[in-house]
Amino acid sequence: MIILNGGSSSGKTGIVRCLQAVLPDPWLAFGIDSLVDALPASMQTSPEGIGFAADGAVTVGADFRALEAAWMEGVAATVRAGARVVVDDVFLGGAASQQRWREAVGDLSVLWVGVRCESTVAAARETARGDRTRGMAASQAHLVHEGVIYDMEVDTTHTESLTCARAIAAHIS
Amino acid sequence: MIILNGGSSSGKTGIVRCLQAVLPDPWLAFGIDSLVDALPASMQTSPEGIGFAADGAVTVGADFRALEAAWMEGVAATVRAGARVVVDDVFLGGAASQQRWREAVGDLSVLWVGVRCESTVAAARETARGDRTRGMAASQAHLVHEGVIYDMEVDTTHTESLTCARAIAAHIS
Amino acid sequence: MIILNGGSSSGKTGIVRCLQAVLPDPWLAFGIDSLVDALPASMQTSPEGIGFAADGAVTVGADFRALEAAWMEGVAATVRAGARVVVDDVFLGGAASQQRWREAVGDLSVLWVGVRCESTVAAARETARGDRTRGMAASQAHLVHEGVIYDMEVDTTHTESLTCARAIAAHIS
Amino acid sequence: MIILNGGSSSGKTGIVRCLQAVLPDPWLAFGIDSLVDALPASMQTSPEGIGFAADGAVTVGADFRALEAAWMEGVAATVRAGARVVVDDVFLGGAASQQRWREAVGDLSVLWVGVRCESTVAAARETARGDRTRGMAASQAHLVHEGVIYDMEVDTTHTESLTCARAIAAHIS
Repeated sequence: MIILNGGSSSGKTGIVRCLQAVLPDPWLAFGIDSLVDALPASMQTSPEGIGFAADGAVTVGADFRALEAAWMEGVAATVRAGARVVVDDVFLGGAASQQRWREAVGDLSVLWVGVRCESTVAAARETARGDRTRGMAASQAHLVHEGVIYDMEVDTTHTESLTCARAIAAHIS
Repeated sequence: MIILNGGSSSGKTGIVRCLQAVLPDPWLAFGIDSLVDALPASMQTSPEGIGFAADGAVTVGADFRALEAAWMEGVAATVRAGARVVVDDVFLGGAASQQRWREAVGDLSVLWVGVRCESTVAAARETARGDRTRGMAASQAHLVHEGVIYDMEVDTTHTESLTCARAIAAHIS
Repeated sequence: MIILNGGSSSGKTGIVRCLQAVLPDPWLAFGIDSLVDALPASMQTSPEGIGFAADGAVTVGADFRALEAAWMEGVAATVRAGARVVVDDVFLGGAASQQRWREAVGDLSVLWVGVRCESTVAAARETARGDRTRGMAASQAHLVHEGVIYDMEVDTTHTESLTCARAIAAHIS
Repeated sequence: MIILNGGSSSGKTGIVRCLQAVLPDPWLAFGIDSLVDALPASMQTSPEGIGFAADGAVTVGADFRALEAAWMEGVAATVRAGARVVVDDVFLGGAASQQRWREAVGDLSVLWVGVRCESTVAAARETARGDRTRGMAASQAHLVHEGVIYDMEVDTTHTESLTCARAIAAHIS
């Protein structure tokens, strides 16, 4: 099991797709985006669910936290049932978010990967994507790494996703 | 937990979105499409993964079956951890597919719902969607229900998704 | 050239895809959605551009109107250059919107098609789609047809998109 | 009017979105992808339309060429009607493709921009995107620039889209 953590527009999803391409075995990819897609539409913009403010701030409510905890248990169970799984997440709570994953995965072996990207470059890529609330990249660039402990880190500021993925793949084979 | 089964273009996804809108509690929606999205790109068109033939036939290989089994365990674990979950699936193996779910869910309480749609109407909706291989709707319309036992069935041929969803919601509250 | 007009979630896009499938010659499909996609991201949510209020009301500003007028000229020029084109639009201004198209198309031959759908059914389909602001379907169902003159009308309330498309195709061959 | 030309995964779309964000006036963005989306589904995979081979080669037929020529006339007419338009295209025919645009735009003022990206980097980004046929980036990286004359060129290999967009914007204000 691999868990990638990084801010919005840091390049996590591109790394995940490259990992799936370069790893010899088939890996399933789950992520915080797939959890948000699974929510009722009403929770995708509410105080109890997950909210995206105009300045890029993201807030999550109690209902979201409860469903997220159950989802983490489900991802861990998928791994226990024999699947290789790579997760990309945004640790809005920093070390507290990592702790939630630790409780879900128990004694499963996890490779913790930090995905860094300079704030200005992530913000520029956010503009180029055009489908994200402006400001998320900058507000999350440092926040999500606070107090988090990694097995390895990659930095997409000057390195392509495929190169980052190969470095990660080298750690698990 | 609710499991909906129906052929391609029978209207499952629309019913799921309406269920999430009409049910008073928040429900997570997972489905076979989300599993396919989680696969490596190479498995989305391969004999070991899942293949979509030009005539609409869908074939699945051993690697897909193994990951699917682990994914089912994960969905069941999400429910055991306290989340309400609605799943939409296409039982390409009919009764055998239902049996795979039964093994994953164990003693969890499940509402089994069959989603029917007349073959010609499903094929017409497939044309109107424009994003599915032509022929899937017709080839799956009957196949997926063979030998499957339901708690209730809905038919979208002449009934809107929202009306079907309200009928299902009435069963679980 | 065919111009379809109908409210949000009335089924225009499905009819367009079916028209492209049943008409013997290749037709290009342009629509108000493709114009909105072509706008700068900042104009997709601004008073000068196009705004989607929480209650489903849509407002358009002067910058949008100016670009829309140029786009209509472009669509008309595409037809004059020999392409068959089907357009789906939402006449927020009713007869005034039709008049804008009349000025752009000049003496080109146009089949004007009204796409109706009962307000409650369109609203139900809006819920099933899940990707549109709730309330648009209901607020536009009657509004967009006010004062508009059609060559023919179709009603998707009880009729599939493919059937509607065949009726339209019969008018132009 | 700005016309950008570059191979698949060279970063054209990101540059276009950034151009729309940094230019003070509103610009419409059209591109070869929007033309392909406007085609009948059957033409998106046929010898008369546009075909994507498993090795990334793209072939276009007579029907596609005819509709493309009419579309170019429409884009030019949109500009003549007063809209600012940025186009991103893939000149599969190199200089011949540029000549087709020249005939459509006539005496309109155009800024021709070449978007370069090293073949291996474009191929890596293609893997990271995951939604394009593998091989397109490599096969088009040089091909599309053969014999084409530019007003300026940008290279996304080591430069972010936003930086490229600012360089282009400096040319037109």
